[in-house]
Amino acid sequence: MSEVATTAVARVRAAYRAIEEADRPEIWIHLRPEADALADAAAVDADGSALPLRGTVLAVKDNVDVAGMPTTAACPGYAYPPAADAASVAALRGAGAVVLGKTNLDQFATGLVGTRSPYGAVRDARRPQYISGGSSSGSAVAVALGLVDLAIGTDTAGSGRVPAGLQGIVGIKPTRGVVSTTGVVPACRSYDCVSIFAPDLAGAEAAMAVLASGAPDRPWPSAVRLAAPPRPRVAVPRELTGLDAVWSAAFGAAVDRLRAAGTEVVEIDMSPFLDAARLLYDGALVAERYAAVGEFVDGDPEAVDPTVRAIIAPAATIPAHRLLADRARLEELRAEAMTRLDGIDALMVPTAPEHPSIAEVAADPVAVNSRMGTYTNFCNLFDLAAVAVPAGTAGEAQFGVTILARAFEDAVAADVAATVTETAATTTSAGWPAGPAAGVELAVFGAHLLGQPLEHQLTGLGARWLGPVATAPHYRLMALDTVPRKPGLVRVAEHGVSIVGERWLLSPAALGSFLAALPTPMLLGAVEFDDGSWGTGFGCDQDAAASGRDVSEHGGWKAALAAGALG
Amino acid sequence: MSEVATTAVARVRAAYRAIEEADRPEIWIHLRPEADALADAAAVDADGSALPLRGTVLAVKDNVDVAGMPTTAACPGYAYPPAADAASVAALRGAGAVVLGKTNLDQFATGLVGTRSPYGAVRDARRPQYISGGSSSGSAVAVALGLVDLAIGTDTAGSGRVPAGLQGIVGIKPTRGVVSTTGVVPACRSYDCVSIFAPDLAGAEAAMAVLASGAPDRPWPSAVRLAAPPRPRVAVPRELTGLDAVWSAAFGAAVDRLRAAGTEVVEIDMSPFLDAARLLYDGALVAERYAAVGEFVDGDPEAVDPTVRAIIAPAATIPAHRLLADRARLEELRAEAMTRLDGIDALMVPTAPEHPSIAEVAADPVAVNSRMGTYTNFCNLFDLAAVAVPAGTAGEAQFGVTILARAFEDAVAADVAATVTETAATTTSAGWPAGPAAGVELAVFGAHLLGQPLEHQLTGLGARWLGPVATAPHYRLMALDTVPRKPGLVRVAEHGVSIVGERWLLSPAALGSFLAALPTPMLLGAVEFDDGSWGTGFGCDQDAAASGRDVSEHGGWKAALAAGALG
Repeated sequence: MSEVATTAVARVRAAYRAIEEADRPEIWIHLRPEADALADAAAVDADGSALPLRGTVLAVKDNVDVAGMPTTAACPGYAYPPAADAASVAALRGAGAVVLGKTNLDQFATGLVGTRSPYGAVRDARRPQYISGGSSSGSAVAVALGLVDLAIGTDTAGSGRVPAGLQGIVGIKPTRGVVSTTGVVPACRSYDCVSIFAPDLAGAEAAMAVLASGAPDRPWPSAVRLAAPPRPRVAVPRELTGLDAVWSAAFGAAVDRLRAAGTEVVEIDMSPFLDAARLLYDGALVAERYAAVGEFVDGDPEAVDPTVRAIIAPAATIPAHRLLADRARLEELRAEAMTRLDGIDALMVPTAPEHPSIAEVAADPVAVNSRMGTYTNFCNLFDLAAVAVPAGTAGEAQFGVTILARAFEDAVAADVAATVTETAATTTSAGWPAGPAAGVELAVFGAHLLGQPLEHQLTGLGARWLGPVATAPHYRLMALDTVPRKPGLVRVAEHGVSIVGERWLLSPAALGSFLAALPTPMLLGAVEFDDGSWGTGFGCDQDAAASGRDVSEHGGWKAALAAGALG
Repeated sequence: MSEVATTAVARVRAAYRAIEEADRPEIWIHLRPEADALADAAAVDADGSALPLRGTVLAVKDNVDVAGMPTTAACPGYAYPPAADAASVAALRGAGAVVLGKTNLDQFATGLVGTRSPYGAVRDARRPQYISGGSSSGSAVAVALGLVDLAIGTDTAGSGRVPAGLQGIVGIKPTRGVVSTTGVVPACRSYDCVSIFAPDLAGAEAAMAVLASGAPDRPWPSAVRLAAPPRPRVAVPRELTGLDAVWSAAFGAAVDRLRAAGTEVVEIDMSPFLDAARLLYDGALVAERYAAVGEFVDGDPEAVDPTVRAIIAPAATIPAHRLLADRARLEELRAEAMTRLDGIDALMVPTAPEHPSIAEVAADPVAVNSRMGTYTNFCNLFDLAAVAVPAGTAGEAQFGVTILARAFEDAVAADVAATVTETAATTTSAGWPAGPAAGVELAVFGAHLLGQPLEHQLTGLGARWLGPVATAPHYRLMALDTVPRKPGLVRVAEHGVSIVGERWLLSPAALGSFLAALPTPMLLGAVEFDDGSWGTGFGCDQDAAASGRDVSEHGGWKAALAAGALG
């Protein structure tokens, strides 16, 4: 939205004006009456509590339940009135977002093109003769046109990334299960994820932080990296299957930006990834789509888009042992792929290999669709996290890349994505998940400060740097006789001063491992900060402190070092 | 084995004499030439390294590969010469075990009775007209007759527990994936586990500790309870489906022993557990058996046991969507079952509901088999760990119970099992997994000692008490001004003494969480022990220590309290 609006009501009003001006009726399957949305907005404005998404204008893909509006999954005959908001919708609304309506999609989320809908093909935001990408077509274009701040999509094989790539926006497909799929019409239940679209990374991450703090289907494990390392190693495809020279050059430019940001780039063979993608289309995995909506399709075939029907209906007779064999093969491919990623932090791929026109899709709907998933299909099958970000243009088209990371290393993917994307707004990664759900904090005052010799111990454990901190004025800082040189922070009854340090976030298991490896004379325990709060931080043996040199007058270790206080 | 043999060679010799005397040829599908086993034993005797299972005499179920012997899965036509030992066999051999041979089983591990084999029905160890239980029939009877110290089984639906129950021995079915299934003929690949039989809990746990320290298919998570709480809550079935009065009374006696051991017993409704068991037999999950060996069965039907063939062959045509629907139903049942176990540490069930004769099984092979799995089938489907232990007799039959715990809480199940079992040998739980793979140690010196006011903080985090410890003579113990009363251990340059404390084992995440919640003035860090080693333990702020009262002369906190040193 172009104007700056300070209240939820004003933002919602502006959104409805923008929707009217845009004249893209195919985006919406159900647009709420403005008065209803305004009533919600007024309630948000009247709410005095801290709402992280206060007044955010939200669109919801129409395979995700919103109470009071029918869920169609882009199939009018399938429509039902949901009893309640989907868990994801409830979480965003609870954080202050206002829902404007339900968006168009490839029917039953079966497609990556955005044309497979009786509500009309969703057109590209800038070039209406081109496809939007799908299946979360309406959600992506609503964000791309600035009609909403945020949109919920779903992603099974790329539906939350392909349209983000083609529309020049950000799409986050979190680790499977981190966001509850309760209230979502299943596509392939084993692989379905709720995804988020936003104009920039910070907006998408703010939404994900809210979603991921809800009740997940699969909680964050207690040992997980919460940040990319300072100099990440990122894999890229050795061969850019399906990209022409112009698109390949666009990818090359993104690789150059990665390198310029200090990333080590490693070319890998993508064959196990691409083989898995093929298994999704040519194999038995499609039986999951039949399990999800096959009975409906068989019962009312005329109600279903012919292309979608031709995919789902034949899956009725796939034998179970073939599905099991394909899943076993998939497990082998995953193991192979993970071997390719040994010692590598993330994988960068083009989000889509091309941007076809609506006519091209109409001429060959299945083959074009299949090509669109080249770099997205394997992700959920391999249990990876993905962040799709804009990365310039490829000729007239918008070009996007996707950063993939291991399950639950969503923050690693987001950090790397922040270094490569080109969006107008801020691109600094906010580092989700941040906070108590996934991490605990540690305050450091010496050799573990940024740029100091033991910083690597924390970054090696996947710790995330949060910022500076200062103690309450009850401490002394003693330079100890250690290698490397370390200070010891000691609490004193009198003559204490405030000492500056830094806060890091790390998983509980990483903190436990860090403590278990901590050498004498260092200790960890409660430290009082200058705002009166307490947190975990460094201390030291009193014996060692007693023989140390007092450098408290410098107020912190870096200042003491800079002043040459240690000779 | 009755005699005490001090070398591996002597133990192996004695085992072959015992095998001869027992005259139970149906136990073995392939018994190694004695000379081969003696050569292995001599190599063990010559090995100077620390071998935790030195000279243990081992039998291996014949669906698990041992290099140099054919793997038949009890189907001669299926036999193949394995290229290498299965991962589990290699691990036990590496720890000093000597393999005597391959044992009989229900063909393709499809059965819980021990009669479905062309190598003969395996007879009960004491009452030959009764079944052994299966499918790991030969392995269980070999242990029950004292022919071997240890036997490898497999367990998909109870094959590692039912025969343990009927034979009066211990059977551990670890959390799925903790022991690699590499080199095992799959039965239902998603649910297969390698299991262990031993005469007593300590023997089974020693083997499991070796197996679990190998390369798992699924590593221990970094947050997991490593012990049962001091007063565990254990669920038992409200209704004992399938047990007659005598068997019900035997179960009642086990419940009484649980209560006598200080356990809180809670009756629960078992219906979701029993419904899952039915799904295994009547539903589409059997398609996994077809995926495993169906092609062989179709190709050479005459080579297959008729009962086994009648189970596997029809599964060829089960549609994939039915399998998916059954798995979705299973997930619902699992969620329901887990709700029943909210706030409960373990579940105790009869291992088997009855002990049928061989004639009874012959008369109605499928129905009897199905009844045998009443209390075992749901376990792997629900991703539980299980420890089956002897628990007296039910009339003429031996009676056993199984303790089930959540995935990776194998130590919780073992601890509870130790309180209820009745075996001749030691029943103290050794608490596997113990050691660096799953845990880190913490030394405590005050309020966290056993019986002290904050012990519950450690047991609440699933910490395991390991035993006493003493510091190097470089410390003073100061009574601090805290509530509850705590001492502070401080390292001193002079006049230090040795202070006694206790060691606990806890998961890295538990240690991190413990530290993150630790209040001032307590600190954690490296402590030097009296053997010169260092480990993580308690310290305290020097400011707090300075104002404390020195109670070092008592050598420890409990002694200081007992001496009234604190008034």
